[in-house]
Amino acid sequence: MQSLYLKPKEHHRIQKGHLWVFSNELASLPRDIASGETVKLFTHDKKFLGTGFYNPHSLISIRLLSRKDEEPDKDFFLKKFREALTLREKIYNSDETNAYRLVHGESDALPGLIVDRFNKAIVLQAFSAGMDIHLPLICDVLQELLQPEVIIVRNESPLRELEGLTLYKDVVRGEHSATKQTIHDAGISYEVDLFEGQKTGFFLDQRENRRVIRKFSEGAEVLDVFTNDGGFALNALYGGARSAILIDASKEALQRAERNAELNKFSDYSLVAADAFDTLDQMVESKEEFDLVVLDPPSFTKSRKNLPGALKAYKRLNKLGLQLTRNGGFLATASCSHHVSEEDFLQSVHQAALAAGCQLRLIHKSSQPFDHPVLLAMPETSYLKFACFYVTR
Amino acid sequence: MQSLYLKPKEHHRIQKGHLWVFSNELASLPRDIASGETVKLFTHDKKFLGTGFYNPHSLISIRLLSRKDEEPDKDFFLKKFREALTLREKIYNSDETNAYRLVHGESDALPGLIVDRFNKAIVLQAFSAGMDIHLPLICDVLQELLQPEVIIVRNESPLRELEGLTLYKDVVRGEHSATKQTIHDAGISYEVDLFEGQKTGFFLDQRENRRVIRKFSEGAEVLDVFTNDGGFALNALYGGARSAILIDASKEALQRAERNAELNKFSDYSLVAADAFDTLDQMVESKEEFDLVVLDPPSFTKSRKNLPGALKAYKRLNKLGLQLTRNGGFLATASCSHHVSEEDFLQSVHQAALAAGCQLRLIHKSSQPFDHPVLLAMPETSYLKFACFYVTR
Repeated sequence: MQSLYLKPKEHHRIQKGHLWVFSNELASLPRDIASGETVKLFTHDKKFLGTGFYNPHSLISIRLLSRKDEEPDKDFFLKKFREALTLREKIYNSDETNAYRLVHGESDALPGLIVDRFNKAIVLQAFSAGMDIHLPLICDVLQELLQPEVIIVRNESPLRELEGLTLYKDVVRGEHSATKQTIHDAGISYEVDLFEGQKTGFFLDQRENRRVIRKFSEGAEVLDVFTNDGGFALNALYGGARSAILIDASKEALQRAERNAELNKFSDYSLVAADAFDTLDQMVESKEEFDLVVLDPPSFTKSRKNLPGALKAYKRLNKLGLQLTRNGGFLATASCSHHVSEEDFLQSVHQAALAAGCQLRLIHKSSQPFDHPVLLAMPETSYLKFACFYVTR
Repeated sequence: MQSLYLKPKEHHRIQKGHLWVFSNELASLPRDIASGETVKLFTHDKKFLGTGFYNPHSLISIRLLSRKDEEPDKDFFLKKFREALTLREKIYNSDETNAYRLVHGESDALPGLIVDRFNKAIVLQAFSAGMDIHLPLICDVLQELLQPEVIIVRNESPLRELEGLTLYKDVVRGEHSATKQTIHDAGISYEVDLFEGQKTGFFLDQRENRRVIRKFSEGAEVLDVFTNDGGFALNALYGGARSAILIDASKEALQRAERNAELNKFSDYSLVAADAFDTLDQMVESKEEFDLVVLDPPSFTKSRKNLPGALKAYKRLNKLGLQLTRNGGFLATASCSHHVSEEDFLQSVHQAALAAGCQLRLIHKSSQPFDHPVLLAMPETSYLKFACFYVTR
């Protein structure tokens, strides 16, 4: 392992638990270290800080793996996976769910690696050159630890290009036929297509939030905007909703939602394949009203630069949602844009309420579920905001 | 109703939903309006803003009741109570609980009034002169709406002195014998003494958070610090904890906790009547370890001035808690100090982890439960912070 040194004073953030070293923080940029190679990191005055993966093509030069002098070998990964698995097995019993994020990258001390477990399948994503090189070893260790039927690599995120990595997907262990799985979560079943579906096939991060809206669902007329696989609408129907309208621009998403509704024998729903903003505009014009409106849009910005535009979009969307919420009804609203802080997000909802002429009581707010932990030392690991409001006029 | 006018530019905060007018924001301070009288509020250029209770003795001169020109009469209170009740009845069914906060002051558009419902008893607190004057009317309306066995007034908060009000408690409707009630919440029963108990007899605001720790409790050795009525420990035992140690400085609190434990037929617990910090210091010295440590201290500061001292206390407490948490165990930690922001609180826990030499994954965070809503326009309505961590070394 080669040794790299920080510039003076650049070690404080690292010593407080941050795992990234940016290229401008290194005393010198070495020429002879390959992308993905494991290196040792030292302070400017040669105190050992840890080992990590180096990448000369990325702004993030080093992602720290350990505070000890250790190689990312089989024992290393086995120990990290066991630690992450212990947390999930304590939180989720198999009656409750058979799907969770097993490794959430930096938050599980494995920077650049995402591992999702869907029943008997494992889906991997590598976001750093070092993890990319180690994927065969990682698959060996996961195969030994969990005996999955199939391991799928979904390396399609454009973030990989920032690391100089190519985009691809592949079934790397087991049979392609096992890439379709049925998972269950708190009484609801979902068919997931782990090779063809969006991202890793299913959004696990709204699990707890989907359950929360059951509380507002009994007898309710529900509008689920950006429904994707139908998760929120299905939970509302499970909670006793009288009806649900599911909106998504993607017909494929609505087909998955429909299959999931059938799988769970729900029938009181309808599907609208159209742009969400256009559809909500029309609904406001025709004075439709709902007891529960759910807004779970995709990220409105991938960069800090576009923050003002994103906040405008949140305000517009939430104003429409509130205009469609009956007096005494509920709004459940989310933001998964990392660059939008909770405070900014809630302020955009507040402005939406002022514009819509209604009063809001914030009755619940939360962030990521147990299997998507946050590191206090790394704000980069936090992205999800979810808030529920009681709406009166 | 007399009319009061704001100074120029002082209406913006009010128009955005804030309900308090401070004395230095009024164009003139009238001499002939009695404490608690209802007044009309206008902008400097005579646009109507709403009606509210006036108090010449308080820094908060007016607490707004309505954006309309209406008197706080029987119909007014009935409408407000119904709106608040509708929310609680949608969220909590009687199988789940028979105790909740019915009116959370400003957040339920009734500034200065707290109404708690414990089975067949109602407990009231008035924090403004206007609400104080209206207590007989409020009792009439609540009696008609809910038919409680007893209505108890617990006007003992020192905050009342800021409004020039005296401190007292009284049974104002029904029989004293009904001031002891048995409530239940998510499968656990509690005996509450609504006349003699601390504050209004029971802390409802940790309800959801107590349930969350059940997830970390199976087979666990649990330490519940500042246990009060035993709420967290009882939920841990309900969730399958192997044992629980309950610490509180108050022997009366521990007697209540013990009665509650007996009521629910739990026996694997022990009680420690002692200062929390001293006890934790000793436990660290004798190298005790737990699978789950719960820290739910009283507010460490009632003012912004003492913020640095409060943050030091949170750091010290959480460091002790983390030192007592086993590798692979959980820390559940709360702050009810309004002046401590979530960010500051989490940073004090982060510093505690650095000092204790352990790694933290933040796996859950939340704030107040459904029956303690927050107004986005009034940061004053938000006070509770709760966070759970997976602790490794």
